Amino acid sequence: MKCRKCSQKAVIKIYQHNLPLCKEHFLEFEEERVRKAIQDFQMIERKEKLLVVVSGGKDSLSVAYMLKKMGYTVHLLHINLGIGKYSLLSQEKCEKFSSQHSLPLTVISLVEEWGKGIGELAHSTYKSTCSLCGMVKRYYFNKFAYENGFDAVVTGHNLDDMTSALLANILGWRISYMVKQTPVLREEGKLKKKVKPLIYLTERETAAYAFLSSIDYIREECPFSANSTFLKVKHALNEIEKESPGTKFSFYRGLLKNLHLFKEKEKKPLLRECAICGFPTIMEVCSFCKTLRKEEVKKYASHL
Amino acid sequence: MKCRKCSQKAVIKIYQHNLPLCKEHFLEFEEERVRKAIQDFQMIERKEKLLVVVSGGKDSLSVAYMLKKMGYTVHLLHINLGIGKYSLLSQEKCEKFSSQHSLPLTVISLVEEWGKGIGELAHSTYKSTCSLCGMVKRYYFNKFAYENGFDAVVTGHNLDDMTSALLANILGWRISYMVKQTPVLREEGKLKKKVKPLIYLTERETAAYAFLSSIDYIREECPFSANSTFLKVKHALNEIEKESPGTKFSFYRGLLKNLHLFKEKEKKPLLRECAICGFPTIMEVCSFCKTLRKEEVKKYASHL
Repeated sequence: MKCRKCSQKAVIKIYQHNLPLCKEHFLEFEEERVRKAIQDFQMIERKEKLLVVVSGGKDSLSVAYMLKKMGYTVHLLHINLGIGKYSLLSQEKCEKFSSQHSLPLTVISLVEEWGKGIGELAHSTYKSTCSLCGMVKRYYFNKFAYENGFDAVVTGHNLDDMTSALLANILGWRISYMVKQTPVLREEGKLKKKVKPLIYLTERETAAYAFLSSIDYIREECPFSANSTFLKVKHALNEIEKESPGTKFSFYRGLLKNLHLFKEKEKKPLLRECAICGFPTIMEVCSFCKTLRKEEVKKYASHL
Repeated sequence: MKCRKCSQKAVIKIYQHNLPLCKEHFLEFEEERVRKAIQDFQMIERKEKLLVVVSGGKDSLSVAYMLKKMGYTVHLLHINLGIGKYSLLSQEKCEKFSSQHSLPLTVISLVEEWGKGIGELAHSTYKSTCSLCGMVKRYYFNKFAYENGFDAVVTGHNLDDMTSALLANILGWRISYMVKQTPVLREEGKLKKKVKPLIYLTERETAAYAFLSSIDYIREECPFSANSTFLKVKHALNEIEKESPGTKFSFYRGLLKNLHLFKEKEKKPLLRECAICGFPTIMEVCSFCKTLRKEEVKKYASHL
């Protein structure tokens, strides 16, 4: 198998484009795809200060690496979730990446902030670990970006993440979630802009990109992991993609093309400021405070 | 495992309802589901003349069996597709069922009508076998029902058929197909009403129903079979259903609930009568005539 662009030995084939590529041209191709995604959806501008949130995995470290390479101003944020050895290792990978690529890194530790890791926090607040984890991360990403003057929060969501979440949401017709699955969520008051530059890349491509760029990332899955229905959906999409390469891409593009059908139905909820922390919420007190700042919420309620 | 209703030995468990049932209560349960589907969507009335199209498979024979048992007036129509041994066996099963249950059967043979089976017809008209087969069957179902005074065409589509087609259509965002995936398509001029009484039943349930009702059906798959992407989609849905029983049902129900979102976008095409055969089409000449009555179309065009 020879590289389509230079006839050197190919290291990978992009099935969707039936395109064998050597290492050099593969890296170039992937970076071009990311540049195109940024442009297609007007995600970010060169002068903007970017907060790239990194888990220590292949996707988030790759997107930070690419953005730095493209000349953007990148700051890394890692949330240490306090999941034993897994979190230690995740933080280590982020620190190593930060020093290797001279990118400033901030770590927020749940154990330092709340005395407990995400598992115990979920247990003591009667929440599911995965949904609490998502909520806590989104809160800190936004808060940190807002308080430190960043223009955008960048995440490493790839095409597989987007399409399997989309499929799971469609199976349950959770339209209010579907309309949020866009490559960009624009800034709105204290909610900073969120962008996903890797949406054109499959998981297989980001893994190969990280590997071929010598990015040392954590290969272990989170021990709480996503629920198994989500994994089944991801697996199912992979099987269909194998049979018809390009399905994921056209599925996601189709969502974006047809989003207006759903948006008309979903009235945008009115945002106001949380009575406790001041960050945007559709309720009087935001979910984060309601779950983790119970004492303050009680005090607030008693003064009403 | 004991039957939930009578504590006899259960023969099957309906996972979606976590419901083990004995033979008698299983058959009763399935018939009740079909009665409910008919009622929920006002599919048919007792006085209507029904044309049940039968392939010789478990679904179509089961629906004919159930409707007769419920007291409806049923006539069977079988299209012999001329696919060698497979079609001989299919017709045999229909004939046996017809005589066992004293239901009148009409057979239309493609070889008698066109001198060729569906495979050769597809080859000589440059069509894919599966899409030509679907088109030809729909045409004959409707034409026969219209010309012989039937009130509705009944097909044996089950929940698996509906949801895997729906998923395949959503992956490609083929909205014009999605809006047609309803339990009932109402009569419109020469287009007779089409109904699908088995939409609440999974394939596993219809197979068990046919088996336990001693219906002798063809177990072989059509050698042309559905394309493999469609089978992958069906398989994928089965895997997800195993993990979360009830997914198929709520997925399909969600479509029906949200259909208006898509219908607003899809303007209903204006129907007119085919210049050759007089049956409804959105073009001057219908697809059936365009494909199979080439000589007549040529003659018609030369007179314009």
